[in-house]
Amino acid sequence: MDIDKQLEIIQRGCAELINVEELRKKLQRGKPLRVKMGFDPTAPDLHLGHCVAIHKLRHFQELGHTVIFLIGDFTGMIGDPSGRSETRPPLTREDVLRNAETYKEQVFKILDPEKTEVRFNSEWMDKFDAADFIRLASRYTVARMLERDDFEKRYKSNTPISVHEFLYPLIQGYDSVALKADIELGGTDQKFNLLMGRHLQSQEGQESQCIMTMPILEGLDGVKKMSKSYGNYIGVNDEPADMFGKVMSISDELMWRYYELVSRKSLEEIAELKKGVESGALHPKAAKEELAMDIVGQYHGDDKGEEARQGFNAVFAKGGIPDDIETFSCEQGEASAPAAFLADAGLSKSRGEARRLIKQGAFSVDGEKNEDAEAPLAKGEYIIKLGKKRFLKLLVQ
Amino acid sequence: MDIDKQLEIIQRGCAELINVEELRKKLQRGKPLRVKMGFDPTAPDLHLGHCVAIHKLRHFQELGHTVIFLIGDFTGMIGDPSGRSETRPPLTREDVLRNAETYKEQVFKILDPEKTEVRFNSEWMDKFDAADFIRLASRYTVARMLERDDFEKRYKSNTPISVHEFLYPLIQGYDSVALKADIELGGTDQKFNLLMGRHLQSQEGQESQCIMTMPILEGLDGVKKMSKSYGNYIGVNDEPADMFGKVMSISDELMWRYYELVSRKSLEEIAELKKGVESGALHPKAAKEELAMDIVGQYHGDDKGEEARQGFNAVFAKGGIPDDIETFSCEQGEASAPAAFLADAGLSKSRGEARRLIKQGAFSVDGEKNEDAEAPLAKGEYIIKLGKKRFLKLLVQ
Repeated sequence: MDIDKQLEIIQRGCAELINVEELRKKLQRGKPLRVKMGFDPTAPDLHLGHCVAIHKLRHFQELGHTVIFLIGDFTGMIGDPSGRSETRPPLTREDVLRNAETYKEQVFKILDPEKTEVRFNSEWMDKFDAADFIRLASRYTVARMLERDDFEKRYKSNTPISVHEFLYPLIQGYDSVALKADIELGGTDQKFNLLMGRHLQSQEGQESQCIMTMPILEGLDGVKKMSKSYGNYIGVNDEPADMFGKVMSISDELMWRYYELVSRKSLEEIAELKKGVESGALHPKAAKEELAMDIVGQYHGDDKGEEARQGFNAVFAKGGIPDDIETFSCEQGEASAPAAFLADAGLSKSRGEARRLIKQGAFSVDGEKNEDAEAPLAKGEYIIKLGKKRFLKLLVQ
Repeated sequence: MDIDKQLEIIQRGCAELINVEELRKKLQRGKPLRVKMGFDPTAPDLHLGHCVAIHKLRHFQELGHTVIFLIGDFTGMIGDPSGRSETRPPLTREDVLRNAETYKEQVFKILDPEKTEVRFNSEWMDKFDAADFIRLASRYTVARMLERDDFEKRYKSNTPISVHEFLYPLIQGYDSVALKADIELGGTDQKFNLLMGRHLQSQEGQESQCIMTMPILEGLDGVKKMSKSYGNYIGVNDEPADMFGKVMSISDELMWRYYELVSRKSLEEIAELKKGVESGALHPKAAKEELAMDIVGQYHGDDKGEEARQGFNAVFAKGGIPDDIETFSCEQGEASAPAAFLADAGLSKSRGEARRLIKQGAFSVDGEKNEDAEAPLAKGEYIIKLGKKRFLKLLVQ
């Protein structure tokens, strides 16, 4: 393919590329590029926010390049040795391998396994001894390290930075040396670490990798970044109906962003759809169904996409209550308080989440909003709704 | 011995002890203390400035404690990996062992080999892998590291600090953990690194070492610190006559400081001498000869001390020209210029040094000061004097 056309596809949706002329030179050699991206071995449960960069990797594969899916298991197996973070316990070798399998299951829904090298950085880091480490650490200065945004902020606000945190970007950079990466991808928050790879490669006499940052995807609310902790995410493992419904809940504006960053549609196809909506020839809801089907199709197969669309429309046709809602029984009293039965029935993950959603006005009983999380419902039968898509037939006995 | 008496001897001449109550507790247990001091494996050519702390180690030995003479070969074998310092090339294992022998030759003139463990930190550091290093680095914060005087100054003045320089104090501190040191000695400039040992030991659940800093010894001029580069030093390997003469050249005031810090005299003996001088019963020159004999005696044996005293006085008795001066011949011309023959005859180390000394007025020909380093002497025979103690019979042919 023509280099300019390749560069157009590569740059689709990217936040920053350093730099286009170097990348053009690499492409002109006609050899498949080695496209590196690192993944945290502790968090293999992906949502669409993670998939922005994975889609970009897919674009590279479609252009014939090799993706290196790098699992940073070396530092993962150390955990957070400062003991400050309870959420970073050290992983065992078994954890790492199990998480890697979970990763593969998810990312190979987007990536072509044939053009993907799955690597672990323990492969070379386990061979590093203390002297190698000192040599590596000598390649960078404290002052430049403190220029990294988060370090600078923490240093200035007297929030402790452990010395070992200065070693992690060096390891990430060294991974690029070990892998002879031509380009590395990451989120915009990774820019400093990606540049470290360029620096260390050039010190080793290698050609420096290009770096490409991908934007942070907004969650369903269109405001905050997509994140589990904000509850505004579409998980790669979400059920088709749930995934479909979540896509249908986003704004028309956000729809185009999702099209660009996480759909399989080409730029031309997207332009066509957009033109249709703008001219009035296509209803925005139809365009959104198209996107929802595409996304469900990626993770569950295209037949499930169509099925989810039909299911979704059937619910809407009946005023929003689906056919197959479950029945949950509880005793009148403590157990019939909304925070309690929502969590017990599994509509919310916890009572805390239930209370939060109720407070946000997302809870209704027989179609009427209810904002009291603690007042038990009386004996009887109710149709419970939480958020836009979670229903329950409740029997209080 | 009574603990208070021990503490008095231990604290003789020291700049700072952290802290006396902890040390008292350690002494009260009645077990020999493990007294650590680290030495740079690259510079085994000692002068009296280095011996201040070695004398302190000797005091500990005399009180029955064990000295650990630690050679920091692990980092020495890495050199300065940033490549900024030409004076720190990596040492080989052979260099380290050879330098260790040179150290031993010199320090065992003061220390008792029976009560000295000579150790190399490569013993434990070679077993450190990259993960161990990360764990070690997690034990300290960047902000506290930047509180070290020299780091703080360099950071503020934008002088680069390589990240690996943060690792060296951690290694020095870890050495105390590996050695289970009870107390560590060093110069006042080492305080930060010594404290690191306390910190890391307490993190490992060990009792923290005490730390003791020794003052910097002034050179012969009494102003600048003793240093080879200032030419104001007494080398451990200086010849007896040279050593004796150098001690005799110091001021009366400085004499008492040398007594305290680098002589073998007890505090009681020093007090006695001082009283003698103050009352007029003892001439200061006699007290200085006593010191000079003591110092020569330490490094060459007491008979050589007495011999040096006699030689020194014989020179002075004859107007300063010793009996046994050597004869050196050169041809008239370039070779008979003072800068040339002083260097060629070995009176100065180099022509540059000769020029400097001549410029300072330290050079005389037949008793007359000569300040022209370049004008060749005519044919003839001369008595040449450089500084206070270097003589030569020169034949210009």
